[in-house]
Amino acid sequence: MKTVQDYIRTIPDFPHEGIMFRDVTTLFNDPRGFRIAIDQLLHPYAGQPIDKVVGLEARGFILGGAIAHQLSLGFVPIRKNGKLPGKTIEQSYTLEYGEAVMEVHDDALQPGERVLLVDDLLATGGTAEAGIKLIERMGAQVMGCAFVIDLPDIGGRAKLEALGMDVHALCQFEGD
Amino acid sequence: MKTVQDYIRTIPDFPHEGIMFRDVTTLFNDPRGFRIAIDQLLHPYAGQPIDKVVGLEARGFILGGAIAHQLSLGFVPIRKNGKLPGKTIEQSYTLEYGEAVMEVHDDALQPGERVLLVDDLLATGGTAEAGIKLIERMGAQVMGCAFVIDLPDIGGRAKLEALGMDVHALCQFEGD
Repeated sequence: MKTVQDYIRTIPDFPHEGIMFRDVTTLFNDPRGFRIAIDQLLHPYAGQPIDKVVGLEARGFILGGAIAHQLSLGFVPIRKNGKLPGKTIEQSYTLEYGEAVMEVHDDALQPGERVLLVDDLLATGGTAEAGIKLIERMGAQVMGCAFVIDLPDIGGRAKLEALGMDVHALCQFEGD
Repeated sequence: MKTVQDYIRTIPDFPHEGIMFRDVTTLFNDPRGFRIAIDQLLHPYAGQPIDKVVGLEARGFILGGAIAHQLSLGFVPIRKNGKLPGKTIEQSYTLEYGEAVMEVHDDALQPGERVLLVDDLLATGGTAEAGIKLIERMGAQVMGCAFVIDLPDIGGRAKLEALGMDVHALCQFEGD
């Protein structure tokens, strides 16, 4: 039977030359692929107290929506800046060239709420780290960070674990 | 008991002066709100043959991920141009000022597949129409277009119905 990794397509040279882009749309497109991905993302958290699911724009919305629905929880989007209409808090992070900013509504989480953070890909960990900081600035607690793909050579897992995070990924691509 | 509409927050003057922005993040944030929204979006399609769920970037990803998971179907993202890594087909549409382009992977749907199209908001219907055209250009069939919010005064529903679409929305805000 196909694993989650088997459903992921690799597109060379996207978004620029030399990058092997790991494309999860082929995973999400397949009914069984999408279902086993959601099941496996949730597996380590069975029985753990989780109050809310947070997803990172934009592919984390697809996974986070499904997971929040599966757990009968509310969903919180963390977005690139300028997209959220209400009062927000911002967190900048470093990109390969320059800086970017993630935002969340400042009333999206309550102090003490326990959060599962979800995204498709853990590469540098920059956006995930920004997400964690936003969650913690609201007084909420990250119970776990769940990703479909980990690119361990790029160092994101090490960065998040150094912050004390529990990192869960369904598969790894090495050499990226 | 609160209705879907009761959970939606209105933010005046976003993204620019004079716009009453209908903010679904407060709906998604609430466990009951998110669940009844998904249930009600699916209600008219119970027993109908649907093969795939298509969501429009970006809030349509949250709803579409949940709905695809609920129905045990695959999910297809339709994105703003430049975001999808594989070979795509493009469809331009008119904005208030200028034009924009939506894209989908050209192998995301097979001829004959029956699709539920999902987004949070039906305003002008421009992005939904672009989505419908992309779906139909792949030979797939739109079984329904489901939205949380319809702004009937802006004319999107009439535009989609003129294309022969079945339009389903959970609530309306008039005067927008």
